[in-house]
Amino acid sequence: MVRYVGVGNCVRWLRAIGVATALRELAGYLEADFRRWSDFDKVARIASHSRDGVIELMPTSDGRFYGFKYVNGHPCNTKAGLQTVTAFGVLSDVRTGYPLLLSEMTLLTALRTAATSALAAKYLARPDSRVMALIGLGAQSEFQAMAFREICEVTDLRIFDVDRDAAEKFVRNMDRAGLRIVVANSVQEAVQGADILTTVTADKRNATILSDNMVGSGVHLNAVGGDCPGKTELQADILTRGRVFVEFPEQTRIEGEIQQMHADFPVTELWRVIVGEAAGRRSDAEITIFDSVGFATEDFSVLRYLHDQIDGTSFYEEIDLVTEPDDPRDLFGLVAGETIGEKDAVHA
Amino acid sequence: MVRYVGVGNCVRWLRAIGVATALRELAGYLEADFRRWSDFDKVARIASHSRDGVIELMPTSDGRFYGFKYVNGHPCNTKAGLQTVTAFGVLSDVRTGYPLLLSEMTLLTALRTAATSALAAKYLARPDSRVMALIGLGAQSEFQAMAFREICEVTDLRIFDVDRDAAEKFVRNMDRAGLRIVVANSVQEAVQGADILTTVTADKRNATILSDNMVGSGVHLNAVGGDCPGKTELQADILTRGRVFVEFPEQTRIEGEIQQMHADFPVTELWRVIVGEAAGRRSDAEITIFDSVGFATEDFSVLRYLHDQIDGTSFYEEIDLVTEPDDPRDLFGLVAGETIGEKDAVHA
Repeated sequence: MVRYVGVGNCVRWLRAIGVATALRELAGYLEADFRRWSDFDKVARIASHSRDGVIELMPTSDGRFYGFKYVNGHPCNTKAGLQTVTAFGVLSDVRTGYPLLLSEMTLLTALRTAATSALAAKYLARPDSRVMALIGLGAQSEFQAMAFREICEVTDLRIFDVDRDAAEKFVRNMDRAGLRIVVANSVQEAVQGADILTTVTADKRNATILSDNMVGSGVHLNAVGGDCPGKTELQADILTRGRVFVEFPEQTRIEGEIQQMHADFPVTELWRVIVGEAAGRRSDAEITIFDSVGFATEDFSVLRYLHDQIDGTSFYEEIDLVTEPDDPRDLFGLVAGETIGEKDAVHA
Repeated sequence: MVRYVGVGNCVRWLRAIGVATALRELAGYLEADFRRWSDFDKVARIASHSRDGVIELMPTSDGRFYGFKYVNGHPCNTKAGLQTVTAFGVLSDVRTGYPLLLSEMTLLTALRTAATSALAAKYLARPDSRVMALIGLGAQSEFQAMAFREICEVTDLRIFDVDRDAAEKFVRNMDRAGLRIVVANSVQEAVQGADILTTVTADKRNATILSDNMVGSGVHLNAVGGDCPGKTELQADILTRGRVFVEFPEQTRIEGEIQQMHADFPVTELWRVIVGEAAGRRSDAEITIFDSVGFATEDFSVLRYLHDQIDGTSFYEEIDLVTEPDDPRDLFGLVAGETIGEKDAVHA
């Protein structure tokens, strides 16, 4: 039997431990896995593009566990009352190839994206950063806010979305989170005085959410929304003014903000900063840019975290995803039984 | 909600309609999908190899549906009472990216592999072929036998496995299938007088199940077991004596019997034979070889068949694999609720 964590159980688990705790503990798993980067089989995700969106598979393995995520991105979905991004994934045992855990990953993706952003900022933003501008107040926004509060000690948010309802939803959800929130009337207004600029918009096109003149010295940019070909948020000029940090260059050059730059545009891998092989921020004046697209190892980390978390709890059920014949060579015995005589016997 | 067909429901469904009916109807879906080959996004499967086996993802799409299968291959598993191959898969709606159906696919893989083999033989074997040698009597063997009985009018089997217990199991399972079965004492003995030679062994190595001198003129070879790098069943000389037919050359050159040949070894794509673009068998004396490895479109066909089959039946349940917040932008609202105040409020 395979352990299954559906949306219901995932919600119960997150409500039980609290989103803040989950983000903080997950950041520990992410950091540990970034520290053993060479352990992982790494491949750019396998994307199937269509007119309205993309469906992707994101596999990786550390030799002990194998994990993959299925994720879609369909910006038009919200018009029909559906999620832009939904996801699910599986953690398997490499030794036998058997799946161990199947989980919803829409919520888990939101958690791991936010925790990765905050982890990157912990290494890249000025240590005294307390004010974050948050542009784009969709499904990912509150998770970003909570992660930066929990992991980077952000205390003040300056938020903006072209949709006023989204801002209202955000403020309502963050009501008791202990963050000071200013609702800005424009991106320009939101970024004023912010130490960290987080963009997390969802349009599937080359948008210019942040233009060059909005980005002052010393800020950290956390560019989350640009994550597939033809979908970017930053004016290209910004990328040349600071240093760009990425998860897995082979994937980011296809999907990230740096798809706007030439193929050998210099980037620094986040894992190298985390293990101390590469410099993070080098001065208070430097602009640092985390060109986040989301990588398979992060999904692996959150599946590994969930797998550890649910052990011995009631936050999962068991499902019969895998056959278990008494004799492994006798698969046919499962389905034949009596019926081979009645329905399958040769029509003679 | 996503429709879920676990092993229990898949077995109930197959017992209700009969394996023979399923194989015959499925062959129709496979043939229809081979006929519209250019509709599909095609990519060689994404394999993660480890010491003991391989885990693979096999995605494809026809622009309306997207399907993928997860499948492992671990020959040592049977020693621990586990299946060599287990699989599950998903069919999704390309328009929204939402998964529609999650199914066990260990049984479905056995069905589609057997139905594809028989479909290929329908186009490639001599029309008067009635006797099949079946070498390797593991989990796939009875499905092959049933498919060839149902789709190619095979009436006689000559079977062999190095393991005598496997032969006993096979004979027991086929007891009422209306096939004449001879249990041979060697491969050599099994192939004598056979019109079709099916090899479906599972060793993960370059084995020589069939050597050149065993293959007479006019036979059709259905080589199923060799399906990953370093795993073959036929002596390479055999491949030069006949014409080789494959599913998707880019994948077969990596995984099939033709991995033993140079990169431009001539092959004919099965779909071209089915649509009439390429010749199948050209004479009674010709040797034809179907170098089967299993391709993503075949998994797509069986998922599409199952999806059609279960509509309006009790052969599935619904699971909460995908979040469904009232407001798609309000994912956080699902998990925050009251707890943000108690557990997530800033520790002030």
